[in-house]
Amino acid sequence: MAEEEGEWLPQPDVDDIELVKVLHALGDPVRLSLLKVYSTGRHFSCAPDALGLPHLHKSTVSHHLKIMREAGLTSTRASGRNRYVELRRADLDARFPGLLDAVINALPHQAVSGK
Amino acid sequence: MAEEEGEWLPQPDVDDIELVKVLHALGDPVRLSLLKVYSTGRHFSCAPDALGLPHLHKSTVSHHLKIMREAGLTSTRASGRNRYVELRRADLDARFPGLLDAVINALPHQAVSGK
Repeated sequence: MAEEEGEWLPQPDVDDIELVKVLHALGDPVRLSLLKVYSTGRHFSCAPDALGLPHLHKSTVSHHLKIMREAGLTSTRASGRNRYVELRRADLDARFPGLLDAVINALPHQAVSGK
Repeated sequence: MAEEEGEWLPQPDVDDIELVKVLHALGDPVRLSLLKVYSTGRHFSCAPDALGLPHLHKSTVSHHLKIMREAGLTSTRASGRNRYVELRRADLDARFPGLLDAVINALPHQAVSGK
């Protein structure tokens, strides 16, 4: 299927996902904003406007997405100029039960300005 | 009671504890090591040896404890030269249900070298 074409960018295997890297990746306001976006499902664009972060440069968003992917929070498939990003919910739930849900449930407490 | 003497160092009120600061405070190997220590109960010494972090300087440990306290993870009471540190379990459970338990339960996955 066309939707599955493209190249998956490097990410850690589930058993290699490290707690400290996941927490570090989450401990940033922009990345919590991105978590909020991706917690709603796969997202097809990395354009700052589309992600609700119009005040950020595209390269800044890419930088944060790279940190999230390398920590094991997200998967990214590159197809042409598009990036398909999704949370690794099942992997994270298997590795650190309850962690992602607790963070996502706490997001309403978080001022998600993405400064 | 003598045990309750001393001065509580500044910390945020429970309603002012911010998710991003808590996650940032947790996203560090030394601070996860300290979390592991304090998750077992109140601890009476901040000496690196007593905390299982003999390779760290006392000032380094103090720096990390300050970040944890200011994020709302821990309370610290100063009495003379002693520091009494404890996790703010009830406050964190009230503010971000399930978060602290998920992190503590995930600690065995964490290489707690405290480098």
